[in-house]
Amino acid sequence: MAKKADQYFRVDPWKVIEEGFDPAYARVSESVFSLANETLGVRGCFDEGGSVDSLRGAYMNGVYDIQALPKSYRGIVDKTHFMIPAAEWLATKITADGETLDLGKARFHSFLRVLDMQSGTLERSFVWQTAGGKAIRITFLRFLDRTARERAYQRVTLEALNAPADICFASGLSFDVMHEGYQKCFWQTPRLQASDGMLMAQCETAASGQTVFAGALLSLAYKTEACTDERGAYLCARFTLEKGQKTSIDKRVVILYDGTGGETLWSHGLKALQRSREVSLDEALNAQRAYWDAFWRTLDIKIDPSDEETAEAVAAEQQGVRFCSFQLAQTYNGGSMRHNIGAKGLTGEAYNGHAFWDTEACCLPFYLFTNPEAAKSLLMFRYNTLPQARERAKMLDCKGACYPIATLNGEEACSLWQHASLQLQPSTAVAYGIWHYVHVTGDEDFLWSMGAEMLLEIARFLASRVEKGAETGKYGFFGVMGPDEFHMMVNNNAYTNYMGKRTLSLAADTLTEMRSEKPQAYALLAEKTNLSEDEILSWAEIADGMFVPMGENGLIEQHDGYFNLPHTDIHSIPVSQFPLYDHWSYDRIYRSDMIKQPDVLMMLYLYNSSFSGDVKRVNYDFYEPRTIHESSLSPAIHSILAAELGKMEEAVRFFGFATRLDLDNYNRNTREGLHITSIALAWVNIVYGFAGLRSDGEGLSFAPRLPERWSRLSFSILYRGRVISVRMETEKTAFALAEGSDLPVRIYGRECVLTGTECFFPAGG
Amino acid sequence: MAKKADQYFRVDPWKVIEEGFDPAYARVSESVFSLANETLGVRGCFDEGGSVDSLRGAYMNGVYDIQALPKSYRGIVDKTHFMIPAAEWLATKITADGETLDLGKARFHSFLRVLDMQSGTLERSFVWQTAGGKAIRITFLRFLDRTARERAYQRVTLEALNAPADICFASGLSFDVMHEGYQKCFWQTPRLQASDGMLMAQCETAASGQTVFAGALLSLAYKTEACTDERGAYLCARFTLEKGQKTSIDKRVVILYDGTGGETLWSHGLKALQRSREVSLDEALNAQRAYWDAFWRTLDIKIDPSDEETAEAVAAEQQGVRFCSFQLAQTYNGGSMRHNIGAKGLTGEAYNGHAFWDTEACCLPFYLFTNPEAAKSLLMFRYNTLPQARERAKMLDCKGACYPIATLNGEEACSLWQHASLQLQPSTAVAYGIWHYVHVTGDEDFLWSMGAEMLLEIARFLASRVEKGAETGKYGFFGVMGPDEFHMMVNNNAYTNYMGKRTLSLAADTLTEMRSEKPQAYALLAEKTNLSEDEILSWAEIADGMFVPMGENGLIEQHDGYFNLPHTDIHSIPVSQFPLYDHWSYDRIYRSDMIKQPDVLMMLYLYNSSFSGDVKRVNYDFYEPRTIHESSLSPAIHSILAAELGKMEEAVRFFGFATRLDLDNYNRNTREGLHITSIALAWVNIVYGFAGLRSDGEGLSFAPRLPERWSRLSFSILYRGRVISVRMETEKTAFALAEGSDLPVRIYGRECVLTGTECFFPAGG
Repeated sequence: MAKKADQYFRVDPWKVIEEGFDPAYARVSESVFSLANETLGVRGCFDEGGSVDSLRGAYMNGVYDIQALPKSYRGIVDKTHFMIPAAEWLATKITADGETLDLGKARFHSFLRVLDMQSGTLERSFVWQTAGGKAIRITFLRFLDRTARERAYQRVTLEALNAPADICFASGLSFDVMHEGYQKCFWQTPRLQASDGMLMAQCETAASGQTVFAGALLSLAYKTEACTDERGAYLCARFTLEKGQKTSIDKRVVILYDGTGGETLWSHGLKALQRSREVSLDEALNAQRAYWDAFWRTLDIKIDPSDEETAEAVAAEQQGVRFCSFQLAQTYNGGSMRHNIGAKGLTGEAYNGHAFWDTEACCLPFYLFTNPEAAKSLLMFRYNTLPQARERAKMLDCKGACYPIATLNGEEACSLWQHASLQLQPSTAVAYGIWHYVHVTGDEDFLWSMGAEMLLEIARFLASRVEKGAETGKYGFFGVMGPDEFHMMVNNNAYTNYMGKRTLSLAADTLTEMRSEKPQAYALLAEKTNLSEDEILSWAEIADGMFVPMGENGLIEQHDGYFNLPHTDIHSIPVSQFPLYDHWSYDRIYRSDMIKQPDVLMMLYLYNSSFSGDVKRVNYDFYEPRTIHESSLSPAIHSILAAELGKMEEAVRFFGFATRLDLDNYNRNTREGLHITSIALAWVNIVYGFAGLRSDGEGLSFAPRLPERWSRLSFSILYRGRVISVRMETEKTAFALAEGSDLPVRIYGRECVLTGTECFFPAGG
Repeated sequence: MAKKADQYFRVDPWKVIEEGFDPAYARVSESVFSLANETLGVRGCFDEGGSVDSLRGAYMNGVYDIQALPKSYRGIVDKTHFMIPAAEWLATKITADGETLDLGKARFHSFLRVLDMQSGTLERSFVWQTAGGKAIRITFLRFLDRTARERAYQRVTLEALNAPADICFASGLSFDVMHEGYQKCFWQTPRLQASDGMLMAQCETAASGQTVFAGALLSLAYKTEACTDERGAYLCARFTLEKGQKTSIDKRVVILYDGTGGETLWSHGLKALQRSREVSLDEALNAQRAYWDAFWRTLDIKIDPSDEETAEAVAAEQQGVRFCSFQLAQTYNGGSMRHNIGAKGLTGEAYNGHAFWDTEACCLPFYLFTNPEAAKSLLMFRYNTLPQARERAKMLDCKGACYPIATLNGEEACSLWQHASLQLQPSTAVAYGIWHYVHVTGDEDFLWSMGAEMLLEIARFLASRVEKGAETGKYGFFGVMGPDEFHMMVNNNAYTNYMGKRTLSLAADTLTEMRSEKPQAYALLAEKTNLSEDEILSWAEIADGMFVPMGENGLIEQHDGYFNLPHTDIHSIPVSQFPLYDHWSYDRIYRSDMIKQPDVLMMLYLYNSSFSGDVKRVNYDFYEPRTIHESSLSPAIHSILAAELGKMEEAVRFFGFATRLDLDNYNRNTREGLHITSIALAWVNIVYGFAGLRSDGEGLSFAPRLPERWSRLSFSILYRGRVISVRMETEKTAFALAEGSDLPVRIYGRECVLTGTECFFPAGG
């Protein structure tokens, strides 16, 4: 891979530390220092703003606006929606002796910025040396409440080190926030109020009809002046800081969107703000630490190096793994079924906050084994947006439900028709996710009450989209784009066909079982959806007759004609030409055997137990050298398969990329936000890759393969009321149940039963 | 074909006549009644405007504006340009006794609108019955000067039939014209002048930096008032028309764009306006008649019916054929090498006035055999825009020159990347056009001075775009869209590969010949273009190794995998679903074996002599039933091949569509403008189809096949200083040279020599 790691942050087991400030790296740092609590998210931008390059984003999950698109052909979306920055609640302005703090211009030293993953806080401190010769230490602390998710906190501490200073301190709430791509503020009809110690602001979006309320309580020991401007409310205090004096200003913030808007939201907001008085910032901070403490106690992944030589690299991996778990849990932890997981979470505006099929294909395993309720909530999001998916199928001249490739609200938001209309993987991924969730959790209630209906509508969509090849007489999907987005409008994409086959089978089996097991529920569903038994039979028939292009040696042709595509030697592409989308003409990307991300290998990963080791090996050996990994999702899948195939060197190499993708700005675009869905795969990479967990067969199985540079890897997963502890060491792996009743599993292919007592398995089985 | 003819206009050998007015048909009529003189064009809209549905377009060839497009991927255009309506010079307002003439609201009778193809005039007359009971006969005459192409004329005649009437007559020039698609007037910084008897107006485009001057002289026998508004200048006269009195107002107009703009253009315009005083409207009208008389004397195609039964249908065809020749000669007759032929000529804003590859692929034969200088001018347009084509190739990461799929000024204007980036046919069509032109005219000077350089750069482009199939080891073009625009991003499209093969051969042969025959010119060209002999050799090698997918039975697969595409029974598509682009989801159109227009058959048409009758038959029989003819270019090509294969019934059926495509509004979109490039194919259909002319072999050959319903078909073509007269009758065909020296040709495959004396060949040879 033509990718290179930056090494900017200090390695630490529990913190991400920036010592000194590099303005050229400012946006990358902002992304890495993002905080979120599922509802609110904020980039690590400077509270005081200034002239430093910055994407000053404070986001709110599910808050977006809508833009009409030029009228185009049928099936091509005529409007799109996108996450917009919401209330800017950190706004702070500090002047000393009339001089305004701006780290882009001022002199300063001892800059330190620390993200603490044990408390979920971001703290930044430095000594400001004013032009007038004053030295003032300033510390900014912020965090987003993990429990009362409408709450956020900021503490600013000022200390005059060498002389008294006349301070003017202003703090505000503002909706005067620009969406960077559109270069536009989408907030209108503001209602603003600023009075002693309290700020309130409420605004509406221009087109989506959403209203957001923001309120703040400020603990200012000084007399304040209140003011408002076009879209913001501010309080300002002037005071003298004596030499050696230190003062802190706490800001308790409430941000709400409840769909009511107007007066109701305003009074609701006011009440929420008053309730927030009950908790001090320090109390909230203690609660925050307790929350993360509990999280790590169960879900920490611990890695130890095998020797001195690898210690440094392994420490970086340890930090990377924790950063991934931390960011994932920040972004989504089951707190809402109205929201999904944006590809960049709440950390930037790239990809518009949209969720892709990554959710089911990449993120779900993390939740299945750490927080099954969150996994269910993600699937509930799909259930709740079934009406939009039905509408989308109609627009594509199909039946049933077609899930969007990119969405915040369930509607297709992707304006690139070649993705929105040709990629069937969101729908098959939802089906896979339903199956995987029920398979792992055993939650049949969900299956009968919601899963079956989704499966039915997805199958219906696929059956209306599938066609028979005129020569082969076999079913297949024509004119599609598989997971490998470097090949467009192809026929019989192996992934799409195979996933379609499995989805149709699953739907037929599920509905057939439902008819006999849950006749009443079945009857209601059949009536609601006008389902006939013939239709179920037709799904089975299509599944049986689906073309899956596997040769005698097990090699699967990615799509019709793939093997005859001109060969690109991916190693001959100069590093300077990445990302290819920026340097190659668009059409050029699409006409060789170079692939962007796993396609055949993706299906071998998802339906792992359905393919033999030989099939995996022949396909891995063929496709891996043709894959350029222009998707950040690519390396982890390769690492998992490489580990399974005993290619440990490759497995480790691909893994290195996965854990520190953003910490080391591998893809040169962390500045736009974190790769949240890729981050999910770092966890999967360890648990499925190195511990060899497989969850798509009967029960669970493990096949631990510890990378040489590690002496120990330990983690826990949740499974049907149990906590399974795994401790891999060089010679052996220890399994035990920290909670729950005995569990039969397979380890290295052998059946055994896990109990509360540790049992050991020699490495390699 | 699921197309149906409207029959609205009266059939007449030399005129198009509308008796009575159907407002629902107003826009179709406007298109059909379009006038043009290559430089200026005007739709048949009502001079007096009013509330009738109208696309009020007066256009000027080469006058366009530019619009930036959202930034997208590399190789996708970031701006587009489009023809805009220019000076509105017909603007007339008539009131009688204070009541304004508006045929959308007023009572009127005896409406008659006549396009006279022998004079190139449009005349409209009716009797207006005012609410006040007055009957006023009003006649509007207009024409565009064929010789002094900056000039246009309008005559308005008023006659009070039953009582005196107080008339207010206003006439103007206005740039206050809206582009219908953009809903925007692109004209700014007006300079306006209105004084006794004279109007002048000048405006600039918003982005393209073009300035247009319009001036008018009015022969008003009454006192006038002058005025101007935002973008227009007007004269108004008030007078009383006594009962029985008749008065005419002549307006002589000059419209100029000369690239100078500003003061220079204004004074240039003023002079041109003053010069136009030298010719009266009647004198100009006489000159106009003489021009068209000369045109028809040589180039008329005459058809006679075989009996009473077919007389009516044949009369309609006769009218249709003349309408086609008339509109083509109006649109382009070699008057400029700065302009090309827009798909809709100067008759509407659809397709933005853009020229496509239709020019070389469809229109060129008409000009080669009726006006070879015009054919040369069209190729000169391509030579003059070689710099833009070189630039475009670079944007596509290729070398050489890539000609645009849609353009007014040589730059690619097509914002649909799937067309602009994937269609190589504009470039191969230019190469074919150069070859065909030189082959037919023998104009080697053109070849060495310009053709060779274009061929070189096109070959270079193709050589940089071609790749080797990994399995076949054969050269081919991957990721293309052939002429059949229903299949996108396909590999080894037969047309593209074959045309590429022939183009590369032609370039290699031409440059090799040039090196030995014109060493000095070659040396200069080689230096200018950095051409090496190795490069020429590589073209020949690629041409030799090109994959052309012909099976043993001669059937050519349209592209890799075409034969396995799901079958669509095109006859099962309800008429209500046409045009498909409006009724099917975009992606759905692209995934079956249904094809839009000839692709394999197109290459069999262009390189007709290179393929056996068997190959043509097997491919015609396979592809014709799969072709939906959603391109208006499709039927004529089918008709020509059907005639060659002796399928006369089909040939006649497809031909019926070609000649009256717009007169009968077959495609339901004549309202947007005339299908000018399809119109060119009507001529080709007769001459190549029924007379069986072939010009791609050695010399000319004919194989006349007269449709049964015709008793006679006669026409003439120009060929290397000769006028060849052809008179086909049921039993025999007479050939003679009306001018020029003896000419060896082949007729029904037998060699013979045409002389000044008629010689006869029995039908069928």
